[in-house]
Amino acid sequence: MADQQLRIGLPKGSLQQATLELFEHAGWRFSVGARAYFPSVDDPEITAVLLRAQEMPSYVADGVLDAGITGLDWIQERGVDVVEVANRVYAKQGLGMYRWVLAVHEDSDIHSAKDLEGKRIATELVNVAAKYLERHGVTAHVEFSWGATEAKIPDLVDAIIEGTETGSTLRANNLRIVDTLMESSTRVIANQAAWADPWKRSKLENIALLLTGALAARQKVLLKMNVHKDNVLAVIDALPALKKPTISHLSDDIWHAVETVVDQHTLRDLIPELKRRGAEGIIEIPLNKVVA
Amino acid sequence: MADQQLRIGLPKGSLQQATLELFEHAGWRFSVGARAYFPSVDDPEITAVLLRAQEMPSYVADGVLDAGITGLDWIQERGVDVVEVANRVYAKQGLGMYRWVLAVHEDSDIHSAKDLEGKRIATELVNVAAKYLERHGVTAHVEFSWGATEAKIPDLVDAIIEGTETGSTLRANNLRIVDTLMESSTRVIANQAAWADPWKRSKLENIALLLTGALAARQKVLLKMNVHKDNVLAVIDALPALKKPTISHLSDDIWHAVETVVDQHTLRDLIPELKRRGAEGIIEIPLNKVVA
Amino acid sequence: MADQQLRIGLPKGSLQQATLELFEHAGWRFSVGARAYFPSVDDPEITAVLLRAQEMPSYVADGVLDAGITGLDWIQERGVDVVEVANRVYAKQGLGMYRWVLAVHEDSDIHSAKDLEGKRIATELVNVAAKYLERHGVTAHVEFSWGATEAKIPDLVDAIIEGTETGSTLRANNLRIVDTLMESSTRVIANQAAWADPWKRSKLENIALLLTGALAARQKVLLKMNVHKDNVLAVIDALPALKKPTISHLSDDIWHAVETVVDQHTLRDLIPELKRRGAEGIIEIPLNKVVA
Amino acid sequence: MADQQLRIGLPKGSLQQATLELFEHAGWRFSVGARAYFPSVDDPEITAVLLRAQEMPSYVADGVLDAGITGLDWIQERGVDVVEVANRVYAKQGLGMYRWVLAVHEDSDIHSAKDLEGKRIATELVNVAAKYLERHGVTAHVEFSWGATEAKIPDLVDAIIEGTETGSTLRANNLRIVDTLMESSTRVIANQAAWADPWKRSKLENIALLLTGALAARQKVLLKMNVHKDNVLAVIDALPALKKPTISHLSDDIWHAVETVVDQHTLRDLIPELKRRGAEGIIEIPLNKVVA
Amino acid sequence: MADQQLRIGLPKGSLQQATLELFEHAGWRFSVGARAYFPSVDDPEITAVLLRAQEMPSYVADGVLDAGITGLDWIQERGVDVVEVANRVYAKQGLGMYRWVLAVHEDSDIHSAKDLEGKRIATELVNVAAKYLERHGVTAHVEFSWGATEAKIPDLVDAIIEGTETGSTLRANNLRIVDTLMESSTRVIANQAAWADPWKRSKLENIALLLTGALAARQKVLLKMNVHKDNVLAVIDALPALKKPTISHLSDDIWHAVETVVDQHTLRDLIPELKRRGAEGIIEIPLNKVVA
Amino acid sequence: MADQQLRIGLPKGSLQQATLELFEHAGWRFSVGARAYFPSVDDPEITAVLLRAQEMPSYVADGVLDAGITGLDWIQERGVDVVEVANRVYAKQGLGMYRWVLAVHEDSDIHSAKDLEGKRIATELVNVAAKYLERHGVTAHVEFSWGATEAKIPDLVDAIIEGTETGSTLRANNLRIVDTLMESSTRVIANQAAWADPWKRSKLENIALLLTGALAARQKVLLKMNVHKDNVLAVIDALPALKKPTISHLSDDIWHAVETVVDQHTLRDLIPELKRRGAEGIIEIPLNKVVA
Repeated sequence: MADQQLRIGLPKGSLQQATLELFEHAGWRFSVGARAYFPSVDDPEITAVLLRAQEMPSYVADGVLDAGITGLDWIQERGVDVVEVANRVYAKQGLGMYRWVLAVHEDSDIHSAKDLEGKRIATELVNVAAKYLERHGVTAHVEFSWGATEAKIPDLVDAIIEGTETGSTLRANNLRIVDTLMESSTRVIANQAAWADPWKRSKLENIALLLTGALAARQKVLLKMNVHKDNVLAVIDALPALKKPTISHLSDDIWHAVETVVDQHTLRDLIPELKRRGAEGIIEIPLNKVVA
Repeated sequence: MADQQLRIGLPKGSLQQATLELFEHAGWRFSVGARAYFPSVDDPEITAVLLRAQEMPSYVADGVLDAGITGLDWIQERGVDVVEVANRVYAKQGLGMYRWVLAVHEDSDIHSAKDLEGKRIATELVNVAAKYLERHGVTAHVEFSWGATEAKIPDLVDAIIEGTETGSTLRANNLRIVDTLMESSTRVIANQAAWADPWKRSKLENIALLLTGALAARQKVLLKMNVHKDNVLAVIDALPALKKPTISHLSDDIWHAVETVVDQHTLRDLIPELKRRGAEGIIEIPLNKVVA
Repeated sequence: MADQQLRIGLPKGSLQQATLELFEHAGWRFSVGARAYFPSVDDPEITAVLLRAQEMPSYVADGVLDAGITGLDWIQERGVDVVEVANRVYAKQGLGMYRWVLAVHEDSDIHSAKDLEGKRIATELVNVAAKYLERHGVTAHVEFSWGATEAKIPDLVDAIIEGTETGSTLRANNLRIVDTLMESSTRVIANQAAWADPWKRSKLENIALLLTGALAARQKVLLKMNVHKDNVLAVIDALPALKKPTISHLSDDIWHAVETVVDQHTLRDLIPELKRRGAEGIIEIPLNKVVA
Repeated sequence: MADQQLRIGLPKGSLQQATLELFEHAGWRFSVGARAYFPSVDDPEITAVLLRAQEMPSYVADGVLDAGITGLDWIQERGVDVVEVANRVYAKQGLGMYRWVLAVHEDSDIHSAKDLEGKRIATELVNVAAKYLERHGVTAHVEFSWGATEAKIPDLVDAIIEGTETGSTLRANNLRIVDTLMESSTRVIANQAAWADPWKRSKLENIALLLTGALAARQKVLLKMNVHKDNVLAVIDALPALKKPTISHLSDDIWHAVETVVDQHTLRDLIPELKRRGAEGIIEIPLNKVVA
Repeated sequence: MADQQLRIGLPKGSLQQATLELFEHAGWRFSVGARAYFPSVDDPEITAVLLRAQEMPSYVADGVLDAGITGLDWIQERGVDVVEVANRVYAKQGLGMYRWVLAVHEDSDIHSAKDLEGKRIATELVNVAAKYLERHGVTAHVEFSWGATEAKIPDLVDAIIEGTETGSTLRANNLRIVDTLMESSTRVIANQAAWADPWKRSKLENIALLLTGALAARQKVLLKMNVHKDNVLAVIDALPALKKPTISHLSDDIWHAVETVVDQHTLRDLIPELKRRGAEGIIEIPLNKVVA
Repeated sequence: MADQQLRIGLPKGSLQQATLELFEHAGWRFSVGARAYFPSVDDPEITAVLLRAQEMPSYVADGVLDAGITGLDWIQERGVDVVEVANRVYAKQGLGMYRWVLAVHEDSDIHSAKDLEGKRIATELVNVAAKYLERHGVTAHVEFSWGATEAKIPDLVDAIIEGTETGSTLRANNLRIVDTLMESSTRVIANQAAWADPWKRSKLENIALLLTGALAARQKVLLKMNVHKDNVLAVIDALPALKKPTISHLSDDIWHAVETVVDQHTLRDLIPELKRRGAEGIIEIPLNKVVA
């Protein structure tokens, strides 16, 4: 065990697999073994614990853990004071993004927050729901839901406040979205004390840099091609302006090797265009990390 | 749909499969289909909903449901006023029986409730825990646990209050049981209004009668044998006194057919004994229901 | 191998498992082994082959097989001349029952067979469909569908003729049923030559008798109870009139043992009623076969 | 724990599931839990250990265990002196029966034991093989095979001595059976000391009685029917002579109830015959145990 | 949804998984979701439908779809007039390649097409079979087979015409191949109208280019190495002549970096050879696409 | 089939999957098909057989096989004379590495080899065990264990000699390690005759080269970055000294492209450091093979 230790919480459940894989791509291999909730990791400076995303904010805020990965929703539900280390890490890639909505049966008379007066609402985010009702000046019965919230309408409750990624589960239950309360996404949080500690802060920033590099690489590839010197300008012109391509002369001084990192989803238009402009021997290479 | 309807809640999760099978043996076939939380049933007088055991007490007490199947633990945690239709149904058979205990790490200094002063306790039964602490006159920080409670000692909390059947999960986590807070078992509950309605009460009593009959049959078998008239008294003497066996003369007036319902677990001693006393052609027949 | 051989075809696919289990309950154990389409069976007088239900009628009619199990739909589609050995075997129990319907998109303008003029129809039963159109005097393009027929509306065809048990797949595809072309159910068929052969006919009738006995036993149980002589009439009066119960005097001449075979689904009303009328020690025993 | 303890070994591997199920039907429920090789059992007088069948004979013979269940092959291979408690238990039912054969490639020149001179033979039963060669006066290289023995011909060895139930694995490997060395079946064995101890011997005999009863019940059923007094003789005449059926007068003195235990595999001929002779309301009831 | 739409059919069943993966590598991600037969795709210009390969030719030819992916066998069986967009796409890579053969039992008297006179033949390609018989001037009974065709010999038919990749299923059924009717492979087809539309044609050509690039990359890798200037010629001489390697001077002017795309299966000979010729630091890099 | 053939044995069981995957990465694709123990391979010069690691040494030493992959433990247990082709292949990567230890119950009185006098020991390596006891001058009863060796303490034996990777199975069985007998790892072995044959030796050396290259690539990646000419020295200084990076001027003469192969596990420190020193556009590329 190292002199210094960073204690981090990783989200158990739906985000667990994605988080552990992302860390592996970033360079840390966690293995869930004998002590299931305390995965081992190949970095003696890190101690990790698997926790439900709901429990993470309090354990981080109370200092039981230095840092943790959880959703914005539970940070707000718990109302804790924590530092966001790298809100850009996941948010840009859409990992763990969803929104919390007010939903009712498609035939319901409820069409806005105002119509909730006196109604029965089921949700996992009872504090967020209470603030929402207060903001709209209505009084309603909010009850904690232990799951399957979307199935409780209309037999058990009048409305729900529920997280949804695409809305398809809601539609499948014949529900209508009335309002959006918040957009949530996965966050890396730390408590104030850990953030004030230079070693811990530097460690957290390195982790964030490599997580970002691994996430970026998922959508990007390296494109290499050979271009006759007469076509170099035309080819470069077709490449994304964002980033200067690397150009090197080949031994014969007539052909140039051009290579650049591009977004994978642009390739189906870009490759035919490059070929038209004279690029030859185009190859696409997968990447593990891209650090700008 | 029938004129009259009984709305009952069935427990989702660990008890679901056992409950649906028991109902099938009792004579009601539920099928979980398109609307997953609203199983259909081959009895037009019943409407069912699958709910977490935790949510059942409130929905029954509030009259959203007429009756439900849940655990004594959640009835007490919610502190609701409901009627127990058939506490004997499950209790006698050990189905869904477990106890809630106060547990600590095996090396902990905590040896009684008194030692909890100022400690951090994780549990799903926060109200039961609060009353327990109050009863013992100690003050401690009780936090709701979203699961994996036994893994939180000693890294995250000092003690837990957790349900356990055999204690093996606790032992596997190196925990020591300090005290038992309550014995819980599965209960059929109804609200006062449903119980006061003659039709609903009669329906609930019939359901209880058949559930009891199906449960009893799991442990019992019908034993039949032929006995020479000279040995009848000796054989009958070996049979459990509880219940008079059925004896009929066979056509030849020399042999008697003896049959009786016995507990399955007594057979390994009973059958050799009966054979010794002159019983012949002993056969054991499985039963679907036994209604005393 | 026996002197005489009955060659029968068993349906591969959705009915296979149910058919092999039914035969096992009836007393023939088929095992699907090395030669997958030629299951072995513990009766040297039988040779079996597994075939798609669609292919069965021709192979039976042409005399390649003596008998087979298939659906009425494919018998009619193939238009073959065969003997129905035991149409009552499956029909009464609802095994393999479904109907073929004309279905369109719920928003379609087609409301009767007349509206099919000039439309495109997908179906597996092209001959049945052609006769149906002829009967209604309309002309339409009927094309053979290789599966997933219900998904072809509205993008690929205007209407379909498709088999359905409960209509739920159709509803899930937003289809509306316009008309029912036929009710199909599972049938045991034989060709004329086999039926005219006394040995084969007797063998087929024995098989039918035992299949019927095994099917009947699925829904029935043996109910036994002890009744004081004063209550015997009241108890018997509550039992289904259909079949006389077996009553025997017990040794003491005061109690009678009453037993009778009843439909399982009547028990949830019958048992409480019998208890009210003085029946004691009611037990319910499962049955393997019931041969009237 | 009881005063007296019987230590028995149960076979791990291919016979494990069948053995544990058979014991459950006989009345002992073993559960394989935390200590996987030491299943717990609901009889305080028994301690059990799961062992490979190969290891059982030595552990029983050396007195480490009182009794065990293993195959005759391994008893002979180990050459130990043990008592066979109940060789009839499994043998009659074919459970765990197979034979050890000498097999060669179908094109091999080896046609009898004599042809093995100087050859290479792979087998798990090296001692049995050595005695076999000695008996035939030939010398060959016998090597222990760790598995997949049948695949070693012809690339790695010239012949194998291998256990086989139906010969189908041998045929699938294009092997030809040259000779049969022994028939093996599952045996219950005890050591001499345990057998000389009255309590242990009585315990072992009870276990054997109930295992036999449970095994017998697998192939048998109870057949009940009502017969008019005029037909009783004809019906009884059709029943297996082995065992006298139970006949009782019904209340009306005209009908008799006849019941008897019969082999399940005779039913497909027996039931049609009984019906022809006037039996009515024939029902077949499954059995858990049959103790003669 | 885009202004212009290309409607393509993808093959359901055995080719589905391979086709969707290939498209993903090419740059289009299809997801099979709620409407199972209508996968969504991340290109607003494409609408896709999953269809059995058998049904594809007609739907494309009739203009219900613009293009589709199916086998040459079904194009010929349906006898439709369509354009082959990119027959080289799959064919070169062996994806979906197999041949249709005439097969009989290994002991059959049938040794050529001529011997089929009056025989019974089962096949899925009844039209192809009919033309084949006509070509050979023989008359036989051809019947449509719904599957398991190879098992129908010899009990149900005399010969089959069946697709096979390696012949191993035929051999396992003891069948002998008499003749090969056709080689089939996967094809991208379009109807004449779509091909005449410049936008659709360009879209189809782009898709074909990228599918080809993704398929090519499966078998190729990028090989990089450093070579002293004295060894450059020897190393280059060992590289496949097909394609000029990229050579660049390193900063020190003594070492050159050589890189080239090579077939993966040549590496086990090529790498030892390159090392012998003085290449150092040889690394092999996987590729996503190779566009010549 | 080629003129020359190398016959190699591959280990069946726990190492099988890893070995076949490693060979695929090295360039040989084995497929386990119809003849399960004789995988086919896409190299006509190789014939392969899957064998238990225990059996490999004898088959190689006896010349039945030219070469094989097995563990050092079984080579020593069998005491055979073979050549180690490439002991570095697996050993450096930790694949198949574990040690054989003497273990006893944690409460046992045995604390060194000396304490084994007269004890009962179970193990799979009976010869290695015998030599170990001899070396320590003690006499004990060593018995061959067919598996589950660790469970035999303390009920069946006093000590075991068992292979273990991390010791966790031993700890879970409450065992204590007393001594380590040997470190084992996976080896490629050949017999003397094969090694003396130039063609076979060259073939084996090529295989070893490519296996080594594929194994090395698992832990390494190619790192590329652009560096301003002013920062080149600082960046290069941070790279591992082991291997000179490849540096090339880009077309603009101001930026250099630097690339180098590095150990994957160094990246989480290296990438942040490189960025601090001015490296830009850092990308990490996966590798298939690295041949020094």
